[in-house]
Amino acid sequence: MRMYDIIAKKRDGGELTDAEIRFFVNGYVAGEIPDYQVSALLMAIYFRGMTERETTSLTQYMAMSGDMVDLSYFGSTTADKHSTGGVGDKTTLIVAPIAAACGLKVAKMSGRGLGHTGGTADKLEAINGYKTNLTSDEFFNIVNKVGVAVITQSGNITPADKKLYALRDVTATVESIPLITSSVMSKKIASGAKNIVLDVKYGSGAFMKTKEDAEILANSMVKIGNLCGRKTSALITNMNVPLGFAVGNSLEVIEAINVLKGKQKGDLYEISIALAGNMIALTLGITEQEGCKKAKHALDSGMAFLKFREWIASQGGDTACIDDTSLFKSADYSMQIKATNSGFISSMNCEKIGTAAAVLGAGRITKDDKIDLAAGIILKQKTGDYVGFGDTLATLYSNDKEKLKSAAEIYKSAIQIGGNAISEPLIYKTVN
Amino acid sequence: MRMYDIIAKKRDGGELTDAEIRFFVNGYVAGEIPDYQVSALLMAIYFRGMTERETTSLTQYMAMSGDMVDLSYFGSTTADKHSTGGVGDKTTLIVAPIAAACGLKVAKMSGRGLGHTGGTADKLEAINGYKTNLTSDEFFNIVNKVGVAVITQSGNITPADKKLYALRDVTATVESIPLITSSVMSKKIASGAKNIVLDVKYGSGAFMKTKEDAEILANSMVKIGNLCGRKTSALITNMNVPLGFAVGNSLEVIEAINVLKGKQKGDLYEISIALAGNMIALTLGITEQEGCKKAKHALDSGMAFLKFREWIASQGGDTACIDDTSLFKSADYSMQIKATNSGFISSMNCEKIGTAAAVLGAGRITKDDKIDLAAGIILKQKTGDYVGFGDTLATLYSNDKEKLKSAAEIYKSAIQIGGNAISEPLIYKTVN
Repeated sequence: MRMYDIIAKKRDGGELTDAEIRFFVNGYVAGEIPDYQVSALLMAIYFRGMTERETTSLTQYMAMSGDMVDLSYFGSTTADKHSTGGVGDKTTLIVAPIAAACGLKVAKMSGRGLGHTGGTADKLEAINGYKTNLTSDEFFNIVNKVGVAVITQSGNITPADKKLYALRDVTATVESIPLITSSVMSKKIASGAKNIVLDVKYGSGAFMKTKEDAEILANSMVKIGNLCGRKTSALITNMNVPLGFAVGNSLEVIEAINVLKGKQKGDLYEISIALAGNMIALTLGITEQEGCKKAKHALDSGMAFLKFREWIASQGGDTACIDDTSLFKSADYSMQIKATNSGFISSMNCEKIGTAAAVLGAGRITKDDKIDLAAGIILKQKTGDYVGFGDTLATLYSNDKEKLKSAAEIYKSAIQIGGNAISEPLIYKTVN
Repeated sequence: MRMYDIIAKKRDGGELTDAEIRFFVNGYVAGEIPDYQVSALLMAIYFRGMTERETTSLTQYMAMSGDMVDLSYFGSTTADKHSTGGVGDKTTLIVAPIAAACGLKVAKMSGRGLGHTGGTADKLEAINGYKTNLTSDEFFNIVNKVGVAVITQSGNITPADKKLYALRDVTATVESIPLITSSVMSKKIASGAKNIVLDVKYGSGAFMKTKEDAEILANSMVKIGNLCGRKTSALITNMNVPLGFAVGNSLEVIEAINVLKGKQKGDLYEISIALAGNMIALTLGITEQEGCKKAKHALDSGMAFLKFREWIASQGGDTACIDDTSLFKSADYSMQIKATNSGFISSMNCEKIGTAAAVLGAGRITKDDKIDLAAGIILKQKTGDYVGFGDTLATLYSNDKEKLKSAAEIYKSAIQIGGNAISEPLIYKTVN
């Protein structure tokens, strides 16, 4: 088998066999196939696409390229949740304990990538003592006993995805449905959960800008997840407005705790119930409506909060700050952003808001950046709200005073005051 | 400027600016842009194509990536001829002296690539004493005095093409009209001639299998040549049958000498007049018909033969073997291929015939192969000829006895006896 022939076949619109896909995935990971042939193939895939069979095969060989987490001990009760990424998205902190409170097993590994804030594990490090590195045994024991554990990615999960993604990132071949699908789903397959709920976001703060594109991606990922033998569903949700009011690591943990304590309703509360409800529905084989009812009950009754507390404690986290969130270390500096005119907020550019948070220190801009866990933004007004001249739009936090000013400029440029806001539902649809 | 943005722009169907094309050509030659980004761009170009403006710009920056031969001393009298490659194509040996006999200046550099036979310079080495390496001064002086000189490529001509072609060859991005056009035309532009005639072949022995594809390529190359400031025309010619009867280096030189001496007419004679006629027409600004008339006169009168003799002598070649071609060193071994049934030859697979010649030792299969100058094939029967059982189809020659048998098998598999031959004109059309 020759890589040349595989490139030419895809270039000419052919369907690659499983053996051909295995050959290029394994050959690339082994360093036997050079980058320049793989990037040509990726561009051919960008133009020609892949059939469901090809995408499934690619996803499986990518998943099998490294360690596969074995959760079979937990039978069919394991569930995972994945978001395609959005600003202010701290739902895992709420969804995981809801699911665990309903008897599901959530064994989650969180990456430490680039972004406007850290990943879930980074956020949890804002809690004193929380250990994101556990041994395999510790991790499994907590999942078994508590029902939920979240650690940073350990071992060698999907090296094929790491290598392919790095290449796609510099060759303009990221935006391909089969390549995005295989990248996301290979990690989920390798992570071992039997039931997978995807939060596919669209809008100014999401990778997919329109709900139509998000739906195409959601359909693809759900289809491939199921073809790989995992029960998979997806919610298509709105990211034209940040989720909740907090953007930043400790700020988001505090907000999640407030939702878990029943102190905050709104979009974050709603989406958390919907995501957890779908995980419960898939895992227990009940309807989405029944699943959401169970999720709402677990949250409203305080069971999810107790599960959260138990989880954090079992990973070494200090529960005092959970009980009293004023104990979280706050940033040394803050700045209020004031409205310079009045009217309704007609739109928010979430991508810019995310950039402002990253500039404040909440996220990594380059791989070696250290996250400022207290940095971030608390929004006061969101799309559709009326603001008067001089009203506070948001408060910025950072331990680096210098950063406040440039972040403020970015934040201001993200907010459009005046004109009519387009009212959109939080959840566009569920894809099964 | 970032290579990523250039790839994404072409991927999305955008038109690259001159500055963007210069950036990637120069950056690639300088080693600043990695192979994997260039191969992704090449695949995007494969799918999206290039406008005439982009292709012209690419051709020019590729031409300027290395040495540019300056033939301006000769004014507008310089002419070049290029064939896209075919089996038995020894036309340069006839065309160049015809053109020189009509007052044109043919300063030709010939590559030493892979193929079924060597390049023109390789073939000329079959003549005792012929020097393919001249100094720049020697080369120019012979062109000035005699009107024609042919040497091997010296210096650093179009390094961009060398690097891009090597990458295209392993990434399935060869078959792209703008990329083929820029590859061929950049070398012609860098070689300095003001007037360029292209012989674009189609058929079983050509890169382009159909006359329609050959016409698309011919139109592109003629257009770009003219846009680059060179008078360019093309003939689209049939390569479903080998040209002439000889395939192999010394065998082809002998056949060319026979045509120059007026001993052989037929396809090789016709095409040589047409190609030389077009060179003369372009250079002197006369019609194709008038150019061909001049070419025919130069050939039929023996003037072209005398010019050939003068040229070979001026490059150190032994003219005795020109006067008596039996002095060419013949191969130690030969084998006749006999027909095993009777009927009309309905088709010849020229690619296989070329492979048989290469197997005999006439061409390089890998870069380091040494050419057996006496090896090759003399055809006795061509498409449309009637053969009886046991008639000789061809004679194979080699200095390696072992090679005759496998070459014979390949040759036999190339000849179809029985059924009707499709009669096609030698020259399909002229593109101006």
